[in-house]
Amino acid sequence: MAGEFDLIEQFFSKRQTSRKDVLLSIGDDCALVKPPEFSQIAVSTDTMVAGTHFLADADPAWLARKALSSNLSDLAAMGAVPAWVSLALTLPEMDTEWLKAFSDAFHQFADYYDIQLIGGDTTKGPMSITLTVQGLLPEGKALTRRGASVGDWIYVTGNLGDAKAGLDVILNTVHGGVASQPSALLKVLEKRHFESTPRIYAGQQLLNRASAAIDISDGLYADLSHILSHSSVSARLDVDALPLSAELQEYCSDPQQAQQYALTSGEEYELCFIVPELHRGSIEIELANIGTHITCIGQIQSGSGIVLHASGEPLNWTLSGFDHFNNND
Amino acid sequence: MAGEFDLIEQFFSKRQTSRKDVLLSIGDDCALVKPPEFSQIAVSTDTMVAGTHFLADADPAWLARKALSSNLSDLAAMGAVPAWVSLALTLPEMDTEWLKAFSDAFHQFADYYDIQLIGGDTTKGPMSITLTVQGLLPEGKALTRRGASVGDWIYVTGNLGDAKAGLDVILNTVHGGVASQPSALLKVLEKRHFESTPRIYAGQQLLNRASAAIDISDGLYADLSHILSHSSVSARLDVDALPLSAELQEYCSDPQQAQQYALTSGEEYELCFIVPELHRGSIEIELANIGTHITCIGQIQSGSGIVLHASGEPLNWTLSGFDHFNNND
Repeated sequence: MAGEFDLIEQFFSKRQTSRKDVLLSIGDDCALVKPPEFSQIAVSTDTMVAGTHFLADADPAWLARKALSSNLSDLAAMGAVPAWVSLALTLPEMDTEWLKAFSDAFHQFADYYDIQLIGGDTTKGPMSITLTVQGLLPEGKALTRRGASVGDWIYVTGNLGDAKAGLDVILNTVHGGVASQPSALLKVLEKRHFESTPRIYAGQQLLNRASAAIDISDGLYADLSHILSHSSVSARLDVDALPLSAELQEYCSDPQQAQQYALTSGEEYELCFIVPELHRGSIEIELANIGTHITCIGQIQSGSGIVLHASGEPLNWTLSGFDHFNNND
Repeated sequence: MAGEFDLIEQFFSKRQTSRKDVLLSIGDDCALVKPPEFSQIAVSTDTMVAGTHFLADADPAWLARKALSSNLSDLAAMGAVPAWVSLALTLPEMDTEWLKAFSDAFHQFADYYDIQLIGGDTTKGPMSITLTVQGLLPEGKALTRRGASVGDWIYVTGNLGDAKAGLDVILNTVHGGVASQPSALLKVLEKRHFESTPRIYAGQQLLNRASAAIDISDGLYADLSHILSHSSVSARLDVDALPLSAELQEYCSDPQQAQQYALTSGEEYELCFIVPELHRGSIEIELANIGTHITCIGQIQSGSGIVLHASGEPLNWTLSGFDHFNNND
């Protein structure tokens, strides 16, 4: 007996945010939660597997933060307020040092967003982390991928492309080799890959204002395509408008490469959202109020697919998205 | 693009029970669900990993059924009505034949219990299956591990021990060797290991009647111990009363071995529940009405721990439970 249960008790159950809507937490057959009246629940599940999504020797604190970010980002894209999370943790061996670092970071990040760990499972096997997060929304207000209309404007939060450049550093595929790039720059980009911040507060400001939203987990090009197909519209996208960090511009050899990074960089956890003309003003003001930088990068049109433009001319770039079963093997 | 998303679409999203309380299912950043008023939600997460919980070449239909059973059993132990399930499926490669068999069985079993697949994640990596199930309960009625009082009676559903004997068959550790046991018997026991039935309807009949309940996933001895420690009581357990199948009695060389199997057999998905004297009659009638066999195996006493008895005499057996990080390596 003992091991598996002690493990959960010791690292996870006795030290967390205690929400009033959690009636029973870790330690019974199920957790019991009670959502407020007139609310809906947004539910999302994401898995991260060693060797596929991260290297087995990755910093456990970074992993905890990344796993939560990835899931919270899905809640942000619906405009939901984070409430509860379940953690399924599979580990090859019981490494208490690893578990301490992971659980410390997990609780710190979860506390910040007032999301309570309500249960999960700890098993032995190849390392992987699966989270199911739940968030609350006022009835009928959720942002989906379906509402984009012709004439609406396309926005993104933050800068795009850094996460992909950071992955180059982690995987040792830096352009021109590591030696040719300043090491301070590479450190910054690597950190950006792990420390993307889910846009929880921005997502909540978009409720009642944006017509559709998605978080950028598979790359802007791929994720915007999901909005377009769900909404049966097309997009004209101005690549010169893409928000690029100074670091990405320094890292990439030419501006087009930086733009292509911005279009295909996965796991950014920025939001891509669609705004009717009527609400542009209020969204720009509200997001500036909470300190979230946003950029208009194009407009919704009739038809299907994405048409890339630069300096008023259409582009013929071939881009690929982020898919664990295909391109990223 | 494509692969990962097509995979989910093709096998899981277009063919399921459609519940009225699911407002948005697979295909957006989150699912959206709306529980009825005055209800609470029971949430449980379980992971099954190839090599730890099952062999990689196990029948995918059996696996789907087992993964759902294990999770539904947690809902049953709280008395909850199954509602929604999220599936995180990690596979080493995209094997459409495997996926078809798995998803067919998954949907068939989920439909039977009217539980809707609302989302999940499909990733590449060593095979594992994590489910998060959610069920509904009337406010304040959930069965927990905390309510057992001195004098209450201890019951179990069904027979115990077959799942452990089935595991012997799967792992090739049959007593006396496979050759010494009838092959028809071994087939039955193997099947029992995979086809344990979650006691969903029995659990619902226990609401308002039982004082505590747990499902038998780590073995009766270990799971009853959880009830005892949560309720601060002890148990006197009569091993001669343990319900044993004819097959287990044939398989085991002596009655004591069969009893020890019944006490330690994990993944049974039977319920162990505690009943105040006042409600014994109504529980026995209600469970007989739905065709669920139950057996009284002992009584709650003051103190702590389990005292095993046979023919009125205390026993000194040393038993071990089911723990992936320790005993079952």
